[in-house]
Order: sequence, then C-alpha cells, then structure tokens
Amino acid sequence: MSDNNGIAALVLGAGKGTRMKSNLPKVLQPILDRPMLYYILQAIRGAEIKNSAVVTGHKGSDVEEYLALHWKDCITIRQKEQLGTGHAVKISSSWWRNFSHIVILPGDVPLIGQKTLRRLVDTHLRDQNDCTFITFEPFDPAGYGRVIDSEGHVCIVEERDASTLQKQVRHVNSGIYIFRTSALINYIPSLSASNSQNEYYLTDLVSILSIAGKKVIPHHVENAIELSGINDPIQLSEATGLMKERILKVNMLRGVRIMDPASTFIGPDATLDHDVFIEPFVQIWGQSSIGKGSRIGSHSIISDSAIGENVEILSHVIIDQCTVDCNARLGPFAFIREGTEISSNSFVGKFVEIKKSSLGKGSKVPHLSYIGDATIGDETNIGAGTITCNFDGLEKHATRIGNRSFIGSDTIIVAPVTIEDETFTAAGSVITHDVPTGALAVSRSKQRNIEGWTQRKDRSRKRRK
Amino acid sequence: MSDNNGIAALVLGAGKGTRMKSNLPKVLQPILDRPMLYYILQAIRGAEIKNSAVVTGHKGSDVEEYLALHWKDCITIRQKEQLGTGHAVKISSSWWRNFSHIVILPGDVPLIGQKTLRRLVDTHLRDQNDCTFITFEPFDPAGYGRVIDSEGHVCIVEERDASTLQKQVRHVNSGIYIFRTSALINYIPSLSASNSQNEYYLTDLVSILSIAGKKVIPHHVENAIELSGINDPIQLSEATGLMKERILKVNMLRGVRIMDPASTFIGPDATLDHDVFIEPFVQIWGQSSIGKGSRIGSHSIISDSAIGENVEILSHVIIDQCTVDCNARLGPFAFIREGTEISSNSFVGKFVEIKKSSLGKGSKVPHLSYIGDATIGDETNIGAGTITCNFDGLEKHATRIGNRSFIGSDTIIVAPVTIEDETFTAAGSVITHDVPTGALAVSRSKQRNIEGWTQRKDRSRKRRK
Amino acid sequence: MSDNNGIAALVLGAGKGTRMKSNLPKVLQPILDRPMLYYILQAIRGAEIKNSAVVTGHKGSDVEEYLALHWKDCITIRQKEQLGTGHAVKISSSWWRNFSHIVILPGDVPLIGQKTLRRLVDTHLRDQNDCTFITFEPFDPAGYGRVIDSEGHVCIVEERDASTLQKQVRHVNSGIYIFRTSALINYIPSLSASNSQNEYYLTDLVSILSIAGKKVIPHHVENAIELSGINDPIQLSEATGLMKERILKVNMLRGVRIMDPASTFIGPDATLDHDVFIEPFVQIWGQSSIGKGSRIGSHSIISDSAIGENVEILSHVIIDQCTVDCNARLGPFAFIREGTEISSNSFVGKFVEIKKSSLGKGSKVPHLSYIGDATIGDETNIGAGTITCNFDGLEKHATRIGNRSFIGSDTIIVAPVTIEDETFTAAGSVITHDVPTGALAVSRSKQRNIEGWTQRKDRSRKRRK
Repeated sequence: MSDNNGIAALVLGAGKGTRMKSNLPKVLQPILDRPMLYYILQAIRGAEIKNSAVVTGHKGSDVEEYLALHWKDCITIRQKEQLGTGHAVKISSSWWRNFSHIVILPGDVPLIGQKTLRRLVDTHLRDQNDCTFITFEPFDPAGYGRVIDSEGHVCIVEERDASTLQKQVRHVNSGIYIFRTSALINYIPSLSASNSQNEYYLTDLVSILSIAGKKVIPHHVENAIELSGINDPIQLSEATGLMKERILKVNMLRGVRIMDPASTFIGPDATLDHDVFIEPFVQIWGQSSIGKGSRIGSHSIISDSAIGENVEILSHVIIDQCTVDCNARLGPFAFIREGTEISSNSFVGKFVEIKKSSLGKGSKVPHLSYIGDATIGDETNIGAGTITCNFDGLEKHATRIGNRSFIGSDTIIVAPVTIEDETFTAAGSVITHDVPTGALAVSRSKQRNIEGWTQRKDRSRKRRK
Repeated sequence: MSDNNGIAALVLGAGKGTRMKSNLPKVLQPILDRPMLYYILQAIRGAEIKNSAVVTGHKGSDVEEYLALHWKDCITIRQKEQLGTGHAVKISSSWWRNFSHIVILPGDVPLIGQKTLRRLVDTHLRDQNDCTFITFEPFDPAGYGRVIDSEGHVCIVEERDASTLQKQVRHVNSGIYIFRTSALINYIPSLSASNSQNEYYLTDLVSILSIAGKKVIPHHVENAIELSGINDPIQLSEATGLMKERILKVNMLRGVRIMDPASTFIGPDATLDHDVFIEPFVQIWGQSSIGKGSRIGSHSIISDSAIGENVEILSHVIIDQCTVDCNARLGPFAFIREGTEISSNSFVGKFVEIKKSSLGKGSKVPHLSYIGDATIGDETNIGAGTITCNFDGLEKHATRIGNRSFIGSDTIIVAPVTIEDETFTAAGSVITHDVPTGALAVSRSKQRNIEGWTQRKDRSRKRRK
Repeated sequence: MSDNNGIAALVLGAGKGTRMKSNLPKVLQPILDRPMLYYILQAIRGAEIKNSAVVTGHKGSDVEEYLALHWKDCITIRQKEQLGTGHAVKISSSWWRNFSHIVILPGDVPLIGQKTLRRLVDTHLRDQNDCTFITFEPFDPAGYGRVIDSEGHVCIVEERDASTLQKQVRHVNSGIYIFRTSALINYIPSLSASNSQNEYYLTDLVSILSIAGKKVIPHHVENAIELSGINDPIQLSEATGLMKERILKVNMLRGVRIMDPASTFIGPDATLDHDVFIEPFVQIWGQSSIGKGSRIGSHSIISDSAIGENVEILSHVIIDQCTVDCNARLGPFAFIREGTEISSNSFVGKFVEIKKSSLGKGSKVPHLSYIGDATIGDETNIGAGTITCNFDGLEKHATRIGNRSFIGSDTIIVAPVTIEDETFTAAGSVITHDVPTGALAVSRSKQRNIEGWTQRKDRSRKRRK
C-alpha cells in the first residue's frame, strides 16, 4: 500500500495572487518566518512523499531561488504562460510521468496537515482509485467549486457556472488531488480552454475521468481550516495566527512554559526543551534551539541561535546567529550579533552590542559597550563604556583580550591590538598599543581642580547680559 | 435629496461620564491615539455633513481647546447647567435654526459609521420625515430606552419608567436623531423637566412630535456594535479594540502586510503603502506615512513621521516627528527625536539617540551615540560612543560636521563647533575647536604600560589584609 | 454561623503533576508572577478562613521554602509517601482535629473565588452538614468523578469505575470539600487503598459518610471555570489568561485606563490609582503601586516599585525595586535598578542605567550613562556618557555628587569620590579626586589639528597598494 517511491507531489505555485496586492509572489508570502510554500513542502515531506516539484510562473525566478537555497531536492518547472491549473499539470508531465501517482496541491493551502495528506494517499492506494480529491465543507461555500455527484458521475462545477440548486451544495473542492499518472497521461490531452477565461482547468479532469469510467472518488475532510486557501492579506494574517497556535501547542505539550501564548511567536524550525520559560512578547525564529531551564525575557527576539541550558535572557535582548553557553546571563537591552559566542557563566549587560566576537567563561561586559571582532578570554571584566574601534574607515581589525584582565570603564581600544592576561587598563584610556601580561595601561591627563570657577563664570555671564 | 448645506450635526458632549472614574471629560477619553469625539466628528464629515457643533459642559474648556486646535470649523456651545439632553438641544437653537435639518448625536458613540449616518440622513430626506431616529437591538437591552410604536404613535420609554411588558421590547433608542428644524423649533418649548431627575429629555420629543401628528420614524440599524455607548473603562477598551481592527482591515486590504493584527496598532490618521511589512508589537500613530517596501520591526513606535520607501526599521526603534528617506536603515534600539531628518541610504544604529539633527546621504551613526542639534553631511561615519555636547548648562549649541568625514570612536564634540569635510578625529578626543578641511584632530595622552603592576597591586592588597 | 476560628483549610499540594513535564512542583507553577498555590491561599484568606495548612510531597522542600518566605502563618505537613488524597488528609489529622470544620482543596484550582469558598462554608454551617462538597458541570465531564445521588445516598464514581450510564452524568466533583472534623475523625480510618492504584481516595469518604447516615450534601456551583484543575502547560497558560483578565477588569472598573487589555499584565499584588494610563505591552509585577495621573509607556516592565503621581514613564523602561517620586520622567530605554530613589521632577533618559543610587529633585541623567552606588543632589545635570566606575575589580565604591552641579559629557568618575555642590567637570574628564564646591575639574589634553592629514594618509594608502 505504501509504494512511496512511486508517488510524487506537484505544487502549483505559478499564481500571482492579485488580491494580495504585493510585489512578492504569492507562494513566498510569509507565514511566521517562512514562506507559505515552506509549509506545503513540509506537509509533503511529513506525509512521506519523497519526490516533489513546484510549478513556478509569476516572478518564477524568486520562487526558484528560494527553492534552490532551501529545498535542494525539489524540482522546479517553469510555466511560461499562465494558462490555468490544467496547463500547469500538462507542461509538468515529463516529470510526473515517471511516478505511478501524483499528488497535486495548490500553492496557497499552507495549513494542510501531513496526516491529512497521508490519509488521502493511503485511501487512494488502498481503494485503487484513478483520482481521489479532497472535499470539505467551508463555513461559506461561495467562490468554491461545488462537488456534484449524480448518476455515478462526479464533477466539479465552478461558482460562476453553478445553477442556483448547485450553489446550495456545501461540499466543495479543495484543489488537492491524487491521480494515477497512467490515467492522467491518457486524458489530460482532452482538457480544453474553451471557456470564458481561456484557461485549462484541472477541475475539468474530474468529470472527464469520471465520464470515461475511471474511478474518481471525493475524499471528505472534516477540518475545513486546513484546506483554506490564502487569497488576501487578511487571510494571510489569519493563517499566520493558526499556524502560530499549532506550533505553540506542540511546544507546550512538550513542557515548554509559555506565559502568554497570544504574544509568543515560535518559528516552525525552532526547538525548545522542557522547562524553558517564555515571558510575554517573545519571538524565536529560524534554526534556534534553547536548552532546558532557560528563561527568555519579554521583548526579546532570538534568531538562528543555539542557547544552552539555564541561560537567563532578560528582557529586550536580540540574539542573531550566535551561540550562548549554559548559565550565561544576558540583558536587558543587549544586542548579540552574528558570529558571536558567549561562553558559560558569562554576563552581557545593558546597552551592549557584541558582533563577531567570543566572550570567555565567566567574563562580563556589563554596561554601554560595543565589542566587535574581538576575542575575550575567561574571567575578564570589561568596564562600562568600553568600545572596540574595529573600523578605521576602510577595514575591520581584530582585538584580543586575555584572561583575568580588567578593562577600565570608558577604555577605547583601537584595533588591531592585543591586551594580554591579567592586565589592567585605567578608566578613560585610549589603548593603541599592545599591553603585555600583568601590565597596567594608562593614557590620560591628570585631573586639575580650578577653584572658584563657577562663581567667576556666573559673574562673567551676568556681565555679558 | 442631498441638500447637504441645509443639514448640520450637533454632538452632545457635555456629560461627565461618572462611571469613567476619570478627571478627563468623557468625550476626550482616548480611543487609540485620538479622543472619542474625533471619531464622531470624522463620521459626520465622512457622511458629508459640513456643519457641526459640539455642546460642551463638564470640563468644557478642555473640550473647547481640543476642538479649537483640531477642528477649527466646528462650533462649540457651552451648556452651563447640566439639565439634560433636551436642554442641550434647546440652548443650541440659535445655531441649528439656521439649517433645515439637524442630526443630533451623543458624544459617546465613537464607533458610529459614516455610511450609517449618511443612510439616516438620506432616508429622512427622501421620506420627508419630521424626525428619524436610529434604533437597534443590543445584545442586552437593559438600560436602554425602549422604542414603543402603538396605534400610530411612537415613543421612547426609559428603563426606569418601562413596564415589565415594555422591558421585553428589544428595539432600543440609539440616541442618534435627525429632526426637521422647523418641527423642532415649534415643539422644543413643550419639553418639561418634571421628572425624577429634573432634566429635560430629548427622548420626550419623539412622543411630543408623534402625538402632534408629525412624521416620526424609527430607522433600524442591524449593526448594534456601531451604536454602543461608551460608559466605563472596560467599554472604552472594547471600543478601542474594535476601532483598531477596523483600521487594520482597511490597511490589509490595501496591501499592507501585518503579521500579527492582534499586536499591531495603527492610528486613524496614518497612511501606509502596499508591501509595507509590519512585524508584531508595532505602533504607528499620528500623521505618519510609510512608503512601499518598508519594514517596521517589532517593538517600534512611529509617531507623526514620514518614512520613505524601502526603509528598514529594525526592532525597538522610536521615531517621533521626523522624516526618514528611502533605503535608510535604523536600529535596533534607536531613538530618533523631533525635528530630525535622516537622508537616504544612511544608517542609525544601536543605542543611538538623535534630536533636531540632519544626517546626510549614506552617513552612519552605528553605535552608542547622542547627536543633538547637529548637521552631518554625506558619507560621513560617526564612531561608536560619539557625543555632541550641545548643552552648556544654560543654552543649546549647534554642531556641524561635513561630508566624507570620519569621527573616531568616543569623540566628544563640544558645541558650538564645526568639523569640515574629509576630516578625521582620533578616537577618544574632545573636540572644542573647529577642524579645518582635511585635518586630523587629536586630543589625547600617550599610552604608557606600567609593567608588573598587577602583581604589585595584588601583593599590596594582600598586605593590607 | 461564622465560627471562623473553628474552621481551617487544608490544601493538598503534594502532587507531582507529571503532565506538566516540569522540574518545578505543580503548586509552584506560576500564574502571572505568583505560584498557583498563592491564588488558593489568597482565596482562603479572602473567604476569612484564618487557619491553613498545605500538605507537601513532591519536591516538598521547595514548596515549604516558598511558604516559609511568603505565608508565614501557613502550616506545612509533609506527606512522605504519595498514597493519595485520603492519605494526605489522614496524616494531617493531628493538625485539623483542633478545628470544628475543615475545608479541603486540591492545590491545582487557582481560579477558585473567595466568594465561592465562603458560600460553601456558610451553606455547610447553616445546614449543619457533616460534609458539603462543590460540584459543577464542566464543558467536558470526561476524566472527572461523577456525582451519583441515588436512594438518599451520595457517592463519587471515578471515570475509570463509571458505567456507561454513570458517565452520562454531567455533575462532577470539584475536589473541594468541607467536613465536620468529628465526622472525619470517626470515618477516615475506614478508608482503604484496595483499588488498582493502591491509593487512599478522599472521594471514597463521601459514600462512607453517606452510607453511615451522615449529612453529605453536594453544593453546585455554576461557574465551572473557577473549578478547573490545571494539569498541563496549556491549561496553565489558559488559567493565566483568565486570571489576567480578572485582575484587569477590577483595575479598569476602579478607573485605570488600559488601552489594550490583551497585552497588559498586572500582577495580583499591584495597586494602581485611577487615571493611571497604561499603553500597550506593559507589565506591572510584584508589590508595585502607581499614583494617579501617571502614564506607563509601551514595553515597560515595573516590578516591586512605588511610582508616585503624574510620573511619565516612556516606552521601554524597566524599573525594579525602586521608588520614583511625583512628576518624574523616565525613558525611553532606561533601566532603573534595585535600591534606586528617583526624586520628584527629575529626569532619567535614554540608554541610562541606574543602580542603588539616589537622584535629587529636578536632577537629570539624560543620555547613555551608568550610575551605580551614587548619591546625586538636587538640580544637578549629568552629561551624556557619564559613567561611575563603582567597581575596581574587587569591591564596589560610592560616588557623591552635590546640588546644582554640571557633570560634563563623558565624565568618568572613579569612585570613591565626592564632587561637591555647584561644581563643573569638563567634558571627557576622568575624575579620580574630590572636587571642592564651586570648582571646575578638568583632565584632558589640548586639541591639536594636524592639517593635510587626510590627503597624506590617502596617498600613503595608495602607495601601499
């Protein structure tokens, strides 16, 4: 029954989606942090359909670029003229004729579940159908093709062609089918574009096959939400909300504690361990992972980062493409940027930005600092207001700071420079040369107090008036 | 039918709104970033009623001040004694007697739609009524005046005066009327205050006119939500939510992409182009405009600012009364304050505040800076930690920085001062004098390394113990 | 009827809560900023039941620690073996036998209302029952013990033991009882653990007492939500949402204006005065109080702090364990930490952190500063980029700054140090010694302009290429 290698899936992704009013092609419209197409390809993969192709058309090169980057095994087929769904299937035949059965899905049903898809395939194979297609009862059937099953023949009547009686039918076509390819090959030439839109409709194949005596079976699915097509920005935001809830529930049942699901966003590729605690207004995107016992503070945004166990991320922290080891503490108001490695038990504090740097175990950058292209050892303290001058106007340069060093507040470090282990820098110094192990580096002027200055200034100010 | 010049609208805004438990007068209670009264006046304007007046009373001068600032064409009429809605209409007669018909609305129905109002007027004029008033069926009619229509006479029975049978009537009075002013003039003297509250009720006019044989017609409206009166802070927050949704939908259908409508706030006067992308937790207030292709990052707040096309606003950015040109990039954690102009292709980064300044094309203020009262040219780089000292304790002074200059990190610029084109300042310098074109300005001490210092310090510390 | 001293409440808090998938014991799972147990003990206190005890078991020492810290009057009883609810009551008898009546509640019904509890007690006392227990009709009764009342006998049949007919009963046991202790003492020895789980079920006592002719009365409660048990992270987040709404409503009806209740979090111990205005995305936790007329900006988090009247807290402000006096203005992007006192009319601005410090009346810290362990007088201005170096690598030291002083931008203050009244520090100075009254302190190098430098550098750069 599960001849999975003989099954493939074809996603129809050529449509423009005019009602989206967007320059982005429809299948690339985002749901959370992934394009709509991602979710459909995930469902196909989850249903154990190993071969897939996407028909591209409107802004096809954008879609192809996305697929080349993220779905290397997925074939793309360019539909040069937008002559309808039937035409899209027709021009793809040299690909799908290699399989026994072909699942066909529209590119705008991102909520489709892998189980629903798998059940469609299993039913089709078990019952040895020629065509099985998913039907459902939407809340409002207006606009959908009605499924008419009379005298043993099945057909789909589009809204515009439906009689008043037919319009009362509540069972509609989802646009998701599985065909036996041998049947498809034989009858797809019969499709014609002699209709008001001059398009080839895939839906016509249902009646063509049915009339030809092929076994065409509607497969009813209860959960209408999975089958909703996304046609405008409102529906897109609704689908986003549903997908968000689905992902949060899975996480919560695994033991992730989410104080306020309504304001929590977790992308489909993030993995969170049990006893991770998420405060309100948090976003976790991309290939992020968070170890058990970690806490993510409000207004924080984590993307494509690996966070260890028992990490405390306070509020207003942004972490992008970094690793943070166990027991580290970050924030509030910190920005940890691409390529940064924060070691265990270290602390990055308030109004601190770190970029392409590594911070050793137990080291601290507590306040108002910019650390870029730097390597900092273990147990080192970076004073408030420390800045690595990594850019000279033309190039970026590296800073190296050793272990157990104490960088005084407002130290300005002009890279490239190396500050060795167990060194000190005096507060307010500009470090332009290397500092050897155990040395104190100073560059500042002596303090002078000019007494009576305030009084004299006030007097002179008054005189001027 | 549309004798619009002969029609005016009178808003009854004198009420205190005791249940609001607020020092702010009821009609000034905010819904999103505008007072309740704003929405009613917008609906009146949208219904093409050109003349309007507001009866003020409780904290009347606050309401009058708001109207003088924002609705210059709107008349205000002060009701000195709070003797009821009938009294408010009575004392306004010298104004409304100049029009043929007068629409009367309570000041606490901010959700009223302009179409609903227009339909009321059109029906009234078409049918040549003497009085037409909006009725609706609330979810719970308790507290509302019931509309009783028996033996050809219409009257409104207040909750307190209603019989058990009358209380079962579900049609209630919305408080929104249109009267033929000639009828009103004749019968308003008949209003009496001989009731338990010693107030003149406008509702009594309905039966007075009806009994007098005038044409009094209830005008039923299906959408009860539009007609909800706002009486306490909970209802205020509910109305805020409904208004928020209404505005978001209009924007989404225009092609604005809003990932999470639940956490997105757009004020009624903001205009967003298609393909603007709004991340979760964003607020856009006041007279803001955002050009197509721009992205607004999470936790950002934009007020009264003009944002160009393809601007990338990262998360945690606050922009207030500024202009930002196309392709600029801002944030995260930036505060762009009143009177600032950010030119195209420029970048304002992390933990940066800019006030009353202009930043030229392609210039950058990447980290930890305060720029105030400054003019910065094109292609200039402002190093991390740069501060303009624009305040000397008494006055603010200006800084001018030219094109293609490179301000080193932690440069402290003591205004007034001019730094010309193609200059450099050494990191950590305090600039107190002008810097001529092409010069390097330095003010810092040489670095000295005191070797063996750490060891000596540790030894002395141990000794002290 | 209200023999309150003779009544006590026993909370069964020994359970592990396996479905929570957490290392935290179930009764310590947080709802908003308090553990579940807090809400139950609050309801008991609110119902005027003065004596209470908690049976602890799984991770009992964590629960006991919480109780010792926050509920000093509450007794704890350790159940060493997890032998069921009946066993928990049995081992507690030496405590509850001192009272006439004992209320027993599970530890996982945090939504129980004090009025509901009080009505249970009052009914029980008035009707002189031996056992009264709360029943309700959940949306889905599956999993609950059904209440069977036949031939004058009452019993509770667990789901697993219920017949198909019994499963159709919609009245279920809430797990909340009140017993006459004299009856309990007599019959609790009859409880047996001869069932599939080998546990002692408290529910069995209902039928034991009923059969023995005692007066056992189900007490039906309409509001099923109050009685929902919390068993997994999803239910925990739902209960959090309900508790959040309950607290917000109470606040709004008192005159607190909350623009967006959905995104506003107020803890159960916070007190807000009328005309406090809360922008979206705000959290107020712990023992916080906020005076009338104050405004709390978006993305701000206030914990355990006392905020005076007419304080303006702008967006992105974190205040923890501080006091802020009237008319102060804070933010945006400020972090006011533990032990800080902000006086009236003062201002703390952008990218500023203050810790364990006091800021005098009318003083200002407008930009990019770190102030730690400092005492700052009245009418003093702290320039942008000022840093108190309070840590020397080993110890923290204090800074004292007087009244009417002007600390120049980028002043680095090396503590311990005292800067007296009416002093000035030059921008960019490092202050290592005390500054006497009226003096100007300077430590910086003179500015030199090296003309033609840019041209020479460019030439040399080209040469190198």
